[in-house]
Amino acid sequence: MTLERYGHGGDLQTAAETFGGSPEHFLDYSSNMNPFGPPPSVERVLRERWRDIAGYPDPAVRELRGKLAAHYGIPAESILVGNGAAELIDLLVRVLKPGVTALAQPAFVEYEEAVAHAGGDVHTIPLRAGDDFTLQSQPLEHALAVSDLVFLGHPNNPSGALVPQPLLELAASSEGAMLALDEAFLDFVPEERQLTWMRRAAASPRLFVVRSMTKFYAIPGVRLGFLVAHPDRIRELKERQVPWSVNAFAQWIGCAVLDEAGYAARTLRWLQDERPWFAAALGGLGLRVVPGAAANFLLCRLPDELAGRVPELQRRLGGRGVLIRDASRFAGLDKSWLRLAVKLRADNERLLAALGETLQAMRDEPHPKEDGR
Amino acid sequence: MTLERYGHGGDLQTAAETFGGSPEHFLDYSSNMNPFGPPPSVERVLRERWRDIAGYPDPAVRELRGKLAAHYGIPAESILVGNGAAELIDLLVRVLKPGVTALAQPAFVEYEEAVAHAGGDVHTIPLRAGDDFTLQSQPLEHALAVSDLVFLGHPNNPSGALVPQPLLELAASSEGAMLALDEAFLDFVPEERQLTWMRRAAASPRLFVVRSMTKFYAIPGVRLGFLVAHPDRIRELKERQVPWSVNAFAQWIGCAVLDEAGYAARTLRWLQDERPWFAAALGGLGLRVVPGAAANFLLCRLPDELAGRVPELQRRLGGRGVLIRDASRFAGLDKSWLRLAVKLRADNERLLAALGETLQAMRDEPHPKEDGR
Repeated sequence: MTLERYGHGGDLQTAAETFGGSPEHFLDYSSNMNPFGPPPSVERVLRERWRDIAGYPDPAVRELRGKLAAHYGIPAESILVGNGAAELIDLLVRVLKPGVTALAQPAFVEYEEAVAHAGGDVHTIPLRAGDDFTLQSQPLEHALAVSDLVFLGHPNNPSGALVPQPLLELAASSEGAMLALDEAFLDFVPEERQLTWMRRAAASPRLFVVRSMTKFYAIPGVRLGFLVAHPDRIRELKERQVPWSVNAFAQWIGCAVLDEAGYAARTLRWLQDERPWFAAALGGLGLRVVPGAAANFLLCRLPDELAGRVPELQRRLGGRGVLIRDASRFAGLDKSWLRLAVKLRADNERLLAALGETLQAMRDEPHPKEDGR
Repeated sequence: MTLERYGHGGDLQTAAETFGGSPEHFLDYSSNMNPFGPPPSVERVLRERWRDIAGYPDPAVRELRGKLAAHYGIPAESILVGNGAAELIDLLVRVLKPGVTALAQPAFVEYEEAVAHAGGDVHTIPLRAGDDFTLQSQPLEHALAVSDLVFLGHPNNPSGALVPQPLLELAASSEGAMLALDEAFLDFVPEERQLTWMRRAAASPRLFVVRSMTKFYAIPGVRLGFLVAHPDRIRELKERQVPWSVNAFAQWIGCAVLDEAGYAARTLRWLQDERPWFAAALGGLGLRVVPGAAANFLLCRLPDELAGRVPELQRRLGGRGVLIRDASRFAGLDKSWLRLAVKLRADNERLLAALGETLQAMRDEPHPKEDGR
């Protein structure tokens, strides 16, 4: 029994079953939500509009697509809203049916699962710790030549590394594979407007951008993401999407949070200060923190003397009410890697204290028997 | 431009774009919701738990599956919860991949769309007006012999006819096609407990029951349905379902409404009285109402002198703020058929008045030019 029993972090129900206690009392560093929590407009929208769930959601998601179009300066016909980014990743791969999909790994596990479900093969572009998990041009060029689709996290999850813009240009101008960018965490990057490929994707039948709205606004419970592509591609995808896939709450909340300019500015300010401070403090505990992380999470490696003991660390911290992500679920990483969200200072101090004590206790004890995971 | 532009009824946004006015002011007879509206526990759950959307939904939907299992006396391992019944119909057909699927038509259009998306063929079992759209044994036996899957509405939408139990026994004991029953409206039938095939489906790898929770509890905005099958089948389906497909609101609301025993009893009492009254009144206006309707909607045919004029009727009523379902979108029905929800008495009287006046005006005027639909 592991915390990632259902393949992902943030599963508080499984945490409660595994470690005892009630789901809402865990300090959850295993999923990467904005620590400010849902903005106030969420409560307002629910209070004012809950009776309207007696009607179907708008099947064409008109209001939210209009707001997204205005917000990002892209045509509404280039936007498909989905039941979370997870639905859109699955749908995109099912509709494109790539024979070979290139994945820069470690990567978000949904890409590989979507490819497996659609019956395709994976070409792995190995991201190396020695490069700080940053994509390199030579393996990308090779992948573009041998694949039908290249799927990249921008920034990557779990490393937080952005794809260098020259490599994106290289992929976009390729005669080979199509390019899908997962920008689920790009709204945490202050230079989002310069870095996003949404406008490019809206105009090209070979480029796709997947976005999530639930990390930045701390609303993963509602399920909300969108995909940007050429209008012809959007029509193809929409035709295969399940009707009313996007529930009414998600549509209303999506519209409301786009007006939360103050919340967005505060989030970016906090992260610019907190991430380097937190990374330095983790380094002080002996962890190797992968540099260059652009989003609200950090990929870390245990010190050599504790190599391979992340599952044990996860169990020990879980018993203290703290959840971390065992990153060995990501292809290419072993049991020495963990991923931590960046949260507000008081929580980060609590995490650091628990982590420091636990690492010390592990150093003081012999390596326990393998648990067969 | 038609009201069913996106393939279904209940699209108030399209109604507003087509007829003017604001979406919430239409009297909507085009979708079949419980007219009592969402039960009070829905508001309570939203008020108490909205902050918890900062966490992911339970990916395994444990609490709701446990409640459904207790409520219906079936094992939780035989239940898969989905993002509306529509997701489950699509998922079931994608996973079973039937070469030929038999559909008793007219039928809910999602079955045919799911089959088309999965690349299969449809074998039509024609339901005849002369039989009041009730399934007959001979065409069913033929369908079982030539198909891989038979998909039936129980009751059927749009006719409201239940499948006779001997025919269900015939299908279940067949060596031929598998059987999927859509019981989306069965909770409106007082004998639900005797008529449902959920317990049978939970024990057989060849039987599937799809249920909706959103019609009976008037909560289509949240998207919530479930599928009952053998645990091995549930695992197969779950493996292909998009992660976190069921949003947190849907899970919480689903748990809350199952305790609304008073609401359920009141709904059944109202429908037993109102449906025959409403059907008789519609008959008094010259419509032929298909007898035997078991759910909260009625399939009706225009009198012969107005044959083929349902699109015109829909436009005229839409201009008065009243929405009806043009049933010619259902295979096997022409433009003389309409479907009407059953609502509370005051609304039904309003509908009847508007309908009576409009039918009279149409009788008084020549048939307008074809509008090219």
